[in-house]
Amino acid sequence: MNDRFFIGRTLALAARAKGLTSPNPMVGALIVKKGKIISEGYHRKAGTPHAEVIAIDNALGKARGSTLYVSLEPCCHKDKRTPPCTQKIISSGIRQVIVSMKDPNPKVSGKGIEELRNSGIKVTSGILEEKARKLNEFYVKYITAGMPFVILKVAMTLDGKIATPEGESKWITGEKARSMVHRLRGGVDAVMTAVGTVLADNPMLTCRVPNYKNPVRIVIDPNLETSPEANVFSIPPETIIITKQSAVSSQQSEKKRKKLSEKGIKIIDYNSEKLDLQWLMRELGKRHITSVLIEGGASLNSYCLEAGIVDKVMFFIAPKIIGGKESLPAVGGNSFRRLDEAYRLKDTKVKRIGEDILVEGYLQK
Amino acid sequence: MNDRFFIGRTLALAARAKGLTSPNPMVGALIVKKGKIISEGYHRKAGTPHAEVIAIDNALGKARGSTLYVSLEPCCHKDKRTPPCTQKIISSGIRQVIVSMKDPNPKVSGKGIEELRNSGIKVTSGILEEKARKLNEFYVKYITAGMPFVILKVAMTLDGKIATPEGESKWITGEKARSMVHRLRGGVDAVMTAVGTVLADNPMLTCRVPNYKNPVRIVIDPNLETSPEANVFSIPPETIIITKQSAVSSQQSEKKRKKLSEKGIKIIDYNSEKLDLQWLMRELGKRHITSVLIEGGASLNSYCLEAGIVDKVMFFIAPKIIGGKESLPAVGGNSFRRLDEAYRLKDTKVKRIGEDILVEGYLQK
Repeated sequence: MNDRFFIGRTLALAARAKGLTSPNPMVGALIVKKGKIISEGYHRKAGTPHAEVIAIDNALGKARGSTLYVSLEPCCHKDKRTPPCTQKIISSGIRQVIVSMKDPNPKVSGKGIEELRNSGIKVTSGILEEKARKLNEFYVKYITAGMPFVILKVAMTLDGKIATPEGESKWITGEKARSMVHRLRGGVDAVMTAVGTVLADNPMLTCRVPNYKNPVRIVIDPNLETSPEANVFSIPPETIIITKQSAVSSQQSEKKRKKLSEKGIKIIDYNSEKLDLQWLMRELGKRHITSVLIEGGASLNSYCLEAGIVDKVMFFIAPKIIGGKESLPAVGGNSFRRLDEAYRLKDTKVKRIGEDILVEGYLQK
Repeated sequence: MNDRFFIGRTLALAARAKGLTSPNPMVGALIVKKGKIISEGYHRKAGTPHAEVIAIDNALGKARGSTLYVSLEPCCHKDKRTPPCTQKIISSGIRQVIVSMKDPNPKVSGKGIEELRNSGIKVTSGILEEKARKLNEFYVKYITAGMPFVILKVAMTLDGKIATPEGESKWITGEKARSMVHRLRGGVDAVMTAVGTVLADNPMLTCRVPNYKNPVRIVIDPNLETSPEANVFSIPPETIIITKQSAVSSQQSEKKRKKLSEKGIKIIDYNSEKLDLQWLMRELGKRHITSVLIEGGASLNSYCLEAGIVDKVMFFIAPKIIGGKESLPAVGGNSFRRLDEAYRLKDTKVKRIGEDILVEGYLQK
């Protein structure tokens, strides 16, 4: 039994709340006394107690002299709904704290550890840090950049096509891959698409898996072309339309706006000629959206890559070939990268998902 | 020690001559007496002794009463350079023969086994048959269809592009994938490309790996546009140009033809409006070409798939994205397949080749 084992356990505890803690990180904690775990806890949802607090409470007063293992540096700031964990730890008499990663939140970022040390508690940090960072990759991006972590998802044939020239795309991948996409949606705060996909496929973009929540849907629709009756507007929690301010001018679009807001649909206006996706991501960050899954077509995929907002890609590849130079490519757009300037992926992983293949990787920046 | 073990050993022996036995199959054999291997042999090259003969000769007269394991049914036909193995087996006094697969050659196809049985030898067949069939997939296709086994190779970015709109394609994949392609070339009888690739890239299409042989190069060049100085013509064993008969008419092309044949380049003429690839494959079969690796561009790839000549695909996928709707797709052409009529792959395998990913599979027919 060593620190790596116990920290590994805190990460497993943290992961139980996958997709449920946003905009907070997932955190797990446990208390060890004489080599034995005497209590555990994990953060379930923003606004509810932190992992450390639950673990300490579960120790029923026996935490004195023990070691606390926690997957993220305990918080020390007071501008939130729950009191700082550092005070709770100090007053519980815990002697030692082992932390996986520092909290990248600028309001914490080592200050929590410092406060504990100043109270005479021995603190070690950095155990399984890479794993912890990966587990909370949405939170890390959001809290440091003020923008959501962005995943670009593509479902394509082996020859890189996402639809026939006529737009037929149902279904390229098999049932298992599609059900994995539903779970993916349940794990992110928002799914983003563009008007073209809404008009062509009328998708719901929901998570049809029991016990998962639905993401916010975001539709980029510069000219407000989407019908208020579209499936994407029919399901909670909410849908946000991103539209060009000029589109408000006509009486017809005013009417449409009214109809949309009556349905609870939010509208974010932009007033530049072209939508600035970096700006949009900051806007979403302000709305506490920590993660976005992009499920669009060839143009949106290209546009997002060009804007540099993509953190990770997930390409589901079906063992099929449709051919045709007019078929829709996974990434289209009017521009391309030279081979030596191509978008490059790192930490690529390959998995079999039923009959399909999933290639995922992180954009090298 | 059982039959599967010994047959597995014959397959390993057979595979030692990978790429060297064409148009013959790879065959391995061994002789077992009282549970011990007393001799082994494998077929090294067309025109040299068969595996069974080598194994019997290596037994130095001790084969009497033994069991012969052989990966392919022994031959019984006489219209070839070497005498039938069945006679050699019978006269050696071997008591039992265990065969992995029947020889699909219509001249044998069970007749070899029958002949052995008629001489009182006990014969078992079908041990590790799938494995044996896969090992000799080139031969099986060639001997039953009279056409080569065709592999379509693609090197592309994750978004399915084989070149930028300007044709830049060097290099999409990494060193390991490229060196694997060289070994692939060394393992097939011929590499086929089209004039577009020759003009754009001036490739050699050789196998730059020590101890491997170079394949025959085949260039589809309807209007005889390739320069006689192109790299593809400069290397043994030979290059074949597939051209349209009408292209002979002008004085200029007559001159070119003469120059090409002086360089030892062979020309196959076709007189249909469009090249019939099924016809071409039969022509290559007549020339004892048992396997062809297609290394072309978007159009040739599409053309070969449409013609139904492709048996297997190998897609090397680099973890890069270049985007651009004008970039060249892996499979182009003017037609496409509807999703429910897509070319489908079976027995797909996924491997990591250095930083790249190889997806391979067989066309469902």
